[in-house]
Amino acid sequence: MRTAANVHPSDDWIRDFKGTTYSFDAFLQRITAFHGYPAPGLVIGGKMVDLALNAMPPDCLFDAIAESGHCLPDAIQILTPCTAGNAWLKVLDLGRFALALYDKHRGNGVRVFLDPGKVAVWKEIDSWFFKRKPKAEQDNEALLREIRQAGEKILQVCTIRVHPGLMVKDSVGTRALCPRCGESYPLKHGASCRACQGESPYTTV
Amino acid sequence: MRTAANVHPSDDWIRDFKGTTYSFDAFLQRITAFHGYPAPGLVIGGKMVDLALNAMPPDCLFDAIAESGHCLPDAIQILTPCTAGNAWLKVLDLGRFALALYDKHRGNGVRVFLDPGKVAVWKEIDSWFFKRKPKAEQDNEALLREIRQAGEKILQVCTIRVHPGLMVKDSVGTRALCPRCGESYPLKHGASCRACQGESPYTTV
Repeated sequence: MRTAANVHPSDDWIRDFKGTTYSFDAFLQRITAFHGYPAPGLVIGGKMVDLALNAMPPDCLFDAIAESGHCLPDAIQILTPCTAGNAWLKVLDLGRFALALYDKHRGNGVRVFLDPGKVAVWKEIDSWFFKRKPKAEQDNEALLREIRQAGEKILQVCTIRVHPGLMVKDSVGTRALCPRCGESYPLKHGASCRACQGESPYTTV
Repeated sequence: MRTAANVHPSDDWIRDFKGTTYSFDAFLQRITAFHGYPAPGLVIGGKMVDLALNAMPPDCLFDAIAESGHCLPDAIQILTPCTAGNAWLKVLDLGRFALALYDKHRGNGVRVFLDPGKVAVWKEIDSWFFKRKPKAEQDNEALLREIRQAGEKILQVCTIRVHPGLMVKDSVGTRALCPRCGESYPLKHGASCRACQGESPYTTV
């Protein structure tokens, strides 16, 4: 199962939404530039986005969902126009290693997830993903080699339809001035801004 | 107030964490490449990150907070190594047009926010930010010109200390298989994954 023949036939590892391809090594560099380090989850995440892009109809205006805040948002941001700041990417804290692309008007799309059953035969990936050994004992080179060999064999694609509530644009609405901090905030949040309602991330300002 | 002398003295609009500078026009292009379009909020957001970077001590390992999911996360992602997927950027839904950089170990840092009092004298910015006229009537060129002239004059910087709870690394912890969907999820989420607990974003899978 781990022979060279199992390596992606061409030198291309993935492509982005424009069709620009990346070799495995070029994608590692791209990840490092954006994410800070060549995280294994992001290498797999790139393949997941690639599969999702392949499964979407051409010329479909899509939005994206990351079902976890770990790595997957960055795979989507590197390879599609959907970002955390333009509202085309939604990052959910479901903890599943899965992402979805869907028609932003109709809600139908594809979901790609890491299949635990398929991972079991890939010793290094299984050990890393399920944290079966301490991080210090992890052989990162072997892990990346196995991710490259496994490619899409550890993944599964299915069709989905997104909940209509998620397709409504989250508008700021009317802005008001918070009577406590004096800053502007969305009036729909209440009589004062959420920070002044107790959600401030700061102990001193 | 709106004379050429108020334009940033050199041609540089901002710099990123590495010290690479962008002219106003180069930053518009960079924004468009990442964010999809030259959003005014992201042009201001870039200046906010620039101010925050200037106010941070050199060689400080920092994390970032965006107090809104609109535009600001992308300003941080373009200009710093903090991203939505590497956990160095936290996107909070407070609705305030503000961001912060802070020492990831000590919690002290700087916060930059749009000051509504300062914005009042900039007609186009005020009108856009507070939605005083319909989007179709907005003069986008005049708005960008004014943002460029205003520069940091509409912003305010203060020091902050981040809540210790925010400085704890959000680890996935032990992974389990969800008895309902069969996918892996963080055991700390409960007896089944959050999607199977009713938080699924899909109507059909």
